[in-house]
Amino acid sequence: MIGGGFGGLQVVRGLRRAAGVEVTLVDRQNFHLFQPLAYQVATGGLSSAEIASPLRRVLRHQANARVVLAEATGFDLGSREVTLDKLPNGAASMTIPYDVLVVAGGSAYSYFGHDDWAEFAPELKSLQGALALRSRILSAFEAAELEADPGRRAAWLTFVVVGAGPTGVEMAGQIAELAHDTLRHDYRAVDTSHARVLLVEAADRVLGTFPPSLSRRAARSLEKIGVTLALDTTVVDLADGTIDVQPRNGERSTIAARTVVWAAGVTASPLAALLADAAGGEVDRVGRILVEPDLTLPGRPEVFALGDMAAVRSAGGEVQRLPGVAPVAMQEGRHVARSIGSGTSKPFRYRDKGNLATIGRSHAVADVKGVQLWGFAAWVTWLAVHLAYLIGFENRLLVLTRWTFSYLTRGRTARVIHH
Amino acid sequence: MIGGGFGGLQVVRGLRRAAGVEVTLVDRQNFHLFQPLAYQVATGGLSSAEIASPLRRVLRHQANARVVLAEATGFDLGSREVTLDKLPNGAASMTIPYDVLVVAGGSAYSYFGHDDWAEFAPELKSLQGALALRSRILSAFEAAELEADPGRRAAWLTFVVVGAGPTGVEMAGQIAELAHDTLRHDYRAVDTSHARVLLVEAADRVLGTFPPSLSRRAARSLEKIGVTLALDTTVVDLADGTIDVQPRNGERSTIAARTVVWAAGVTASPLAALLADAAGGEVDRVGRILVEPDLTLPGRPEVFALGDMAAVRSAGGEVQRLPGVAPVAMQEGRHVARSIGSGTSKPFRYRDKGNLATIGRSHAVADVKGVQLWGFAAWVTWLAVHLAYLIGFENRLLVLTRWTFSYLTRGRTARVIHH
Repeated sequence: MIGGGFGGLQVVRGLRRAAGVEVTLVDRQNFHLFQPLAYQVATGGLSSAEIASPLRRVLRHQANARVVLAEATGFDLGSREVTLDKLPNGAASMTIPYDVLVVAGGSAYSYFGHDDWAEFAPELKSLQGALALRSRILSAFEAAELEADPGRRAAWLTFVVVGAGPTGVEMAGQIAELAHDTLRHDYRAVDTSHARVLLVEAADRVLGTFPPSLSRRAARSLEKIGVTLALDTTVVDLADGTIDVQPRNGERSTIAARTVVWAAGVTASPLAALLADAAGGEVDRVGRILVEPDLTLPGRPEVFALGDMAAVRSAGGEVQRLPGVAPVAMQEGRHVARSIGSGTSKPFRYRDKGNLATIGRSHAVADVKGVQLWGFAAWVTWLAVHLAYLIGFENRLLVLTRWTFSYLTRGRTARVIHH
Repeated sequence: MIGGGFGGLQVVRGLRRAAGVEVTLVDRQNFHLFQPLAYQVATGGLSSAEIASPLRRVLRHQANARVVLAEATGFDLGSREVTLDKLPNGAASMTIPYDVLVVAGGSAYSYFGHDDWAEFAPELKSLQGALALRSRILSAFEAAELEADPGRRAAWLTFVVVGAGPTGVEMAGQIAELAHDTLRHDYRAVDTSHARVLLVEAADRVLGTFPPSLSRRAARSLEKIGVTLALDTTVVDLADGTIDVQPRNGERSTIAARTVVWAAGVTASPLAALLADAAGGEVDRVGRILVEPDLTLPGRPEVFALGDMAAVRSAGGEVQRLPGVAPVAMQEGRHVARSIGSGTSKPFRYRDKGNLATIGRSHAVADVKGVQLWGFAAWVTWLAVHLAYLIGFENRLLVLTRWTFSYLTRGRTARVIHH
């Protein structure tokens, strides 16, 4: 099993009672990251370890599972071996054999071919990314406090979030609350409530995967907490301190902004292409490997791919439109574990339980099997679902404690700048 | 006020009602670190933000205090200015004027002139140091799990702590519990209970600042949880993967150990020498600046130095023997605040409330005004005192939650390796 994300962990856990099965879980990180809350680490609401569960701890009583901390860098499907690199003991590399291979390498944000933009607009798929973003965001307020020049100060207090999917919306909402609420009494020279938070989206509405009525409600909530929406607008250039945007029917303009957060586009893990190469298979436009309805590779019933890096064909041959969210990966993981455990092969079918996004304090939207919720009701639903899916009672209690304090005091106390 | 540690924060807080006083607190970090628990971050017991309090948050309602995130790099006592560098807005440097200057830069561990050893044996005075140590310690177990060669595996499972003061004792105890207890079920190829934890100390007993009877009790507790003591032993060389030690009456020997933690010696912040140079004053053998009984610099009644970087003369002229612990710095800080607030000058006198060190689960020693406590009673005292001195009810509750889970499950769940 390559990858200990939402899908990978379900595969391993799902095989805990499978007779005669030994599972090796390979991951570059020694922890499972609860990625849906990474944006709260980035904005000082949570401390890093509170959304990270050590993989060994999660699997310590599963005798048929072992964990290897390494990076998968090659697949030999003929001799059934995986090459591992970046080993913790400093050895050059090693290969491990397999009978069944499952790969779930996830995805990253894509900079639409402008990889050089990553330097100016970090993303937050990883814990490292979230901590780096936290340092940038908090340092921007520190810089503004010291800056005498009004123009430069305004640039330090301008935050642009690119992409209005759930992560972008959540991030913009958190930065707005941080500036307009949490930090209000913390600075002396600057009034952080004058900070501008801009959410740039190429489509004509936020939360494109939600029903239009919820998009409208989310947009209103965002504007209420101080986020400026720039819909129908694309990013055309990005440099240190400036971002150039182009509205669909308008003039290109340059915004002076020291902090840009990237939450747009998506590209599959490079493992998808590596695996496709090894199998003679295909990848789609965003780099996902095409898999059969049962999540195996064409002609390779012993090799599975799942999660954000896999595009699943339906029985008819066309690719299913599955969102890149944790529930899809988890259901696929459980499906693969059942296939391996039983030795049978059935087509995967996604059961959509709903869609959730939070905007800020008491504001969220939810679309649960056609039932639409918004405002406080959706927000409580969001809290409950995220707490329930966090791994471990201890982390649930820690996160609940932080959220309770944040709610009562409007504070965010995990505001450590790591240098 | 330079430095937001235990002493500096007391100065700022102590001046909150001082009429006509404006305080500028300068620190390189945006948080106050509760350094006595840094070793628990290093061993995965706590997450970083749980022992860090954002300075702005702590001071947000103190209208006469402002915070500047920067590094003090120069003092001009004649024109009463401090030079600040590493400014968050990227500006080259700035100077700020003062009427009264207080410097509390703290201390670091000293490598006895072998600064090159720092690379092989990190220390844990800072949060960054604690996180780096955590990654090293946890990665050593990961490496051992993958290592086939028994000799190399043993080296990965050998942990040497240098210095048996409170930090060294606590660190050795935590590593022993981590290896022999917490991680026992987490690995498959290696039995972590075979890990060796060696505590090297040049003196003839551990916890040299405690009464000898408590040193003996602490030594017994350490041995009970699996720490091997090497007393009367000095470190003579350190390289990547090996440490050479020399017992007072024995042969020099080389130990193969991949992880060495440094908790010996102490050296004052470079700010002490910088300030002494500017004032024409003196520093002592460990780099501390010599200050008058009222904590001012000789001939400079408007400049104070305190905490680990200051050596305080008594009225008779000789230097007082004050331990380098938080209570000394805090009392000095309150003393300086009173002096500044009242405009008077009185000699500082330390009120020793006692000495505490924890060894591990249910094991601690305490010397409270001549009353000696050990075992469970001392451990509960230790827990209560540390919780009481943590800043903020939220962090107290988070740490208490972690400790409760650790006690009940023998787990340490903040085991994130940051790359």
